[in-house]
Amino acid sequence: MQLVSRNRCFEGDQAVYTHGSDVCGVDMTFGIYLPPQARNGSVPVLWYLSGLTCTHENAMTKGGFQEHAAKHGVALVFPDTSPRGEAVADDEAYDLGVGAGFYLNATQDPWKPHFQMYDYVVNELRALIQGAFPVTENHGITGHSMGGHGALTIALRNPTLFKSLSAFSPIVNPSQSDWGRKQFSAYLGDDEATWAQHDASILLGELGWHGDILIDQGADDQFMDLLRPQAFAEAATLRRQSAVLRMQGGYDHSYFFVSSFAGDHVKWHADRLRTGLH
Amino acid sequence: MQLVSRNRCFEGDQAVYTHGSDVCGVDMTFGIYLPPQARNGSVPVLWYLSGLTCTHENAMTKGGFQEHAAKHGVALVFPDTSPRGEAVADDEAYDLGVGAGFYLNATQDPWKPHFQMYDYVVNELRALIQGAFPVTENHGITGHSMGGHGALTIALRNPTLFKSLSAFSPIVNPSQSDWGRKQFSAYLGDDEATWAQHDASILLGELGWHGDILIDQGADDQFMDLLRPQAFAEAATLRRQSAVLRMQGGYDHSYFFVSSFAGDHVKWHADRLRTGLH
Repeated sequence: MQLVSRNRCFEGDQAVYTHGSDVCGVDMTFGIYLPPQARNGSVPVLWYLSGLTCTHENAMTKGGFQEHAAKHGVALVFPDTSPRGEAVADDEAYDLGVGAGFYLNATQDPWKPHFQMYDYVVNELRALIQGAFPVTENHGITGHSMGGHGALTIALRNPTLFKSLSAFSPIVNPSQSDWGRKQFSAYLGDDEATWAQHDASILLGELGWHGDILIDQGADDQFMDLLRPQAFAEAATLRRQSAVLRMQGGYDHSYFFVSSFAGDHVKWHADRLRTGLH
Repeated sequence: MQLVSRNRCFEGDQAVYTHGSDVCGVDMTFGIYLPPQARNGSVPVLWYLSGLTCTHENAMTKGGFQEHAAKHGVALVFPDTSPRGEAVADDEAYDLGVGAGFYLNATQDPWKPHFQMYDYVVNELRALIQGAFPVTENHGITGHSMGGHGALTIALRNPTLFKSLSAFSPIVNPSQSDWGRKQFSAYLGDDEATWAQHDASILLGELGWHGDILIDQGADDQFMDLLRPQAFAEAATLRRQSAVLRMQGGYDHSYFFVSSFAGDHVKWHADRLRTGLH
């Protein structure tokens, strides 16, 4: 693991590292914010998964999460959204290939050798973070757009690993959306039965979630038709799932929206991670 | 004036406009944040001048000022750092020409026709903001690095126009720095007597300031030798100037530093602008 940069931020440290990933077969980059409380002991971790076209850097510089993480004593992890490099397959479209890993394990060529973002986040990077930094085993997860999809699907499938859950304008029904069908077909193949484990609305209906879930969605989101929040709302309602689904009037899909509610989400996770109870 | 974008942010609106600038002879772009309080009346304005290589956008997306502006009911204005476009002279160096206007009026060719950032900010853009948006005449000014230089020199020379003043890691003694001597020579010519009116440490010694001044400086700033905070500290001390000069341990020159203290600066200005007293 190699340190790329470290900047003091809200009395804590915002660092960026690269490391060789066995799972993805290339070097991967991630950001980690350690709040000042981490100098005197271990702190809970909030994972933030980013959306299409993003790297580890977008939320780290534009999300405004550090202020709240420092206040509440929570570490932040910002993974990249896909493998990168000359060896990595790509597509001309912004929403397939590099920057668009969709937090799944590709089973189809040419994506299979490197696009293993599900295993990367859930297993490899989580173990690395757990071993290398002063963090407790209380991890929460959130994300934006494609990253909200990642947060929801990863948490729903790994309820013992992630103790708190939220999302910003997540893609919640990708198997019925143009942000999903093309990608799942490419990465997973045409057997739609394999897609269900990467569809948050289907997963919620099948599995539920042991805690409550916070979702913020901008009412003026220009990508609303692709996100399909109504599918998750329906699934949550039918499941009687403890959840807070907020439609935020006037907000769009941008980081101006994300940053506006970053404080609420960090507090949501901190409240649930502090004790490890939920 | 043409609207480029508008995003809801912390219940207010972060907008970007372009407008034809008579002073700079090209179209100029600026950002303005109107807090929710501006829907029901006029609000004070805090100007934020950006540093080398920045556009109107950097602080708008990475500074985290909007949260605090919304809390305190203050508008934010983010001007560009220079004129831009095919007609505009430039230099290969990052610190001269485009992105490096130094908030002065160039008297030398090839810069003179467009590099009139002092008049642009102080007169043209200020009048535009005052006329087009729901703002009071209580304006404060801050900035980062070259923008801190701009904030200090503009405020010191226009004490009736700007009622509150702060800066983040400002260039405070450019006539004795490699961030200054090259640029002043190019923009203003070799007669160093003309440089003094753009040197905050000299201006403070000559003019003082009617209020108190807040300056935050990162102790681990990689550009400390170019900023020369000791020159301003000396001038302020000799002048017995009301000021708070904070050396912040562990912080560098980045926006991770700026955002860490954005809240303090917005509150500083809001407290002084609310009444118009100082």
